[in-house]
Amino acid sequence: MEGYKTFLAFLVSSLLLGFLGVIFTLVWVLHWQGGLGWDGGAAEFNWHPVLVTAGLIFIQGIAIIVYRLPWTWNCSKLLMKCIHAGLHLTALIFAIVALVAVFDFHNAKNIPNLYSLHSWIGLTVVILYGLQLVLGVSIYLLPFAPNSLRVALLPVHVYSGLLIFVTVIATAFMGITEKLIFSLKDPPYSKMPPEGIFVNTFGLIILVFGGLVVWMVTNPAWKRPPDHGMKSISPNVAASEECSTVTECSNTDKSDVEFNNETARKRALKGDEAGQRSTM
Amino acid sequence: MEGYKTFLAFLVSSLLLGFLGVIFTLVWVLHWQGGLGWDGGAAEFNWHPVLVTAGLIFIQGIAIIVYRLPWTWNCSKLLMKCIHAGLHLTALIFAIVALVAVFDFHNAKNIPNLYSLHSWIGLTVVILYGLQLVLGVSIYLLPFAPNSLRVALLPVHVYSGLLIFVTVIATAFMGITEKLIFSLKDPPYSKMPPEGIFVNTFGLIILVFGGLVVWMVTNPAWKRPPDHGMKSISPNVAASEECSTVTECSNTDKSDVEFNNETARKRALKGDEAGQRSTM
Repeated sequence: MEGYKTFLAFLVSSLLLGFLGVIFTLVWVLHWQGGLGWDGGAAEFNWHPVLVTAGLIFIQGIAIIVYRLPWTWNCSKLLMKCIHAGLHLTALIFAIVALVAVFDFHNAKNIPNLYSLHSWIGLTVVILYGLQLVLGVSIYLLPFAPNSLRVALLPVHVYSGLLIFVTVIATAFMGITEKLIFSLKDPPYSKMPPEGIFVNTFGLIILVFGGLVVWMVTNPAWKRPPDHGMKSISPNVAASEECSTVTECSNTDKSDVEFNNETARKRALKGDEAGQRSTM
Repeated sequence: MEGYKTFLAFLVSSLLLGFLGVIFTLVWVLHWQGGLGWDGGAAEFNWHPVLVTAGLIFIQGIAIIVYRLPWTWNCSKLLMKCIHAGLHLTALIFAIVALVAVFDFHNAKNIPNLYSLHSWIGLTVVILYGLQLVLGVSIYLLPFAPNSLRVALLPVHVYSGLLIFVTVIATAFMGITEKLIFSLKDPPYSKMPPEGIFVNTFGLIILVFGGLVVWMVTNPAWKRPPDHGMKSISPNVAASEECSTVTECSNTDKSDVEFNNETARKRALKGDEAGQRSTM
């Protein structure tokens, strides 16, 4: 991998920031917002920011960059696709529970649902995220889709995934704004109480996290190479060998061979939507 | 250009949506928010959403895709760089006036400045936008920077430009959220008055606009080819001929020849941060 140390710096920074983001939401709800619970009250609502940050931001971010980890390049594409889809599925489950929490809270408190731009875009993006996962699994994980369809749709899959990811962060910004305006009363948000400054800082953390993830995944120098002859390319032999102990690690599936062979790759690059935005 | 008709559909859709976004902010402030003025009151504040939408969203979006217009591919890179930088400068001026309007309004009404996440990210992004413009002009428009520096920094220039663009849209979402919560009182935002629905729709419009712009600029099939032998590639002969009447249109500057020659291009693609994200 070109620029391996730079990649590592980006990876470590993004993982630290993503993890810090989750810690920030936990501190926010535990220290200032009454903690976590499932009683239709504020404690139930509090699952919403925690699960969105942990799932739709942090785990989704990891799912997006998982193909970029050079010590996984010896693993079969099928295994990596399972990990990619598994992480996205986990994030989707987190998101659904996060939505249930906020609807439950609104209904218990007679607060109207779905009036704000935050809710419009947020619900849409979770639905699209589910659709993206179903289509992604159907086309790229299950062995039924023809190679031509996989190649043609790959740039759309990658782009829509990244669009969903950045839209989630934009939606979180609106959620932060709403919550701070509604919950900070004495002193209000405009007086910059510690909670306001803390949560604003959380917003900056997820912004930088998103920026790092998208940089990593769109840098063509850090793209997973085709599966042939990977052992010599991986910079982390120990990790690669450990990886080889995973059952499927060396079992490249037939569709992957077809997808990753040089001819298919060239076809992808020649197509109307060439694969330069690929995370695959 | 591959997929010329698809490109045209994307271009027309994005221009219509961007223009519609500007119209929406005008209707919002003229019909619901007391119009425009420069008196320290709400009418002065109203310049803020109008100028941000017109400048930092619509004009910046056009500046980003201007290299993609195939009927400009016969024009010299220098001319296109001037148009690119000129549009960004216009957007920056709009943004500065938009900031002055909101600071003036806050100061006149004794509303604190810079407490919200909207203001933190918004001010940061305008400062970074100015820095991006200064660096972009210094490195790519003025003839002093060595080619190696241009090639090395191009992916950073492109990525930071797109990051600024999407962050502006995310910041606008927070601004919309703040303004609707603060200004809609009877009925409140939660009762979904027409103004709330209208401005939420405006938010969706700029989201789709941003999505289209980023798709267009990151689609490698729609990238401006190197300057050599462009006349046969341009699909719009009439536009190319009209373009040839512009004084500088055929005067490729020395630095452009150097930058666009095949050797430099290959060097860019081979570099640590290869030029696949290029808008140049």
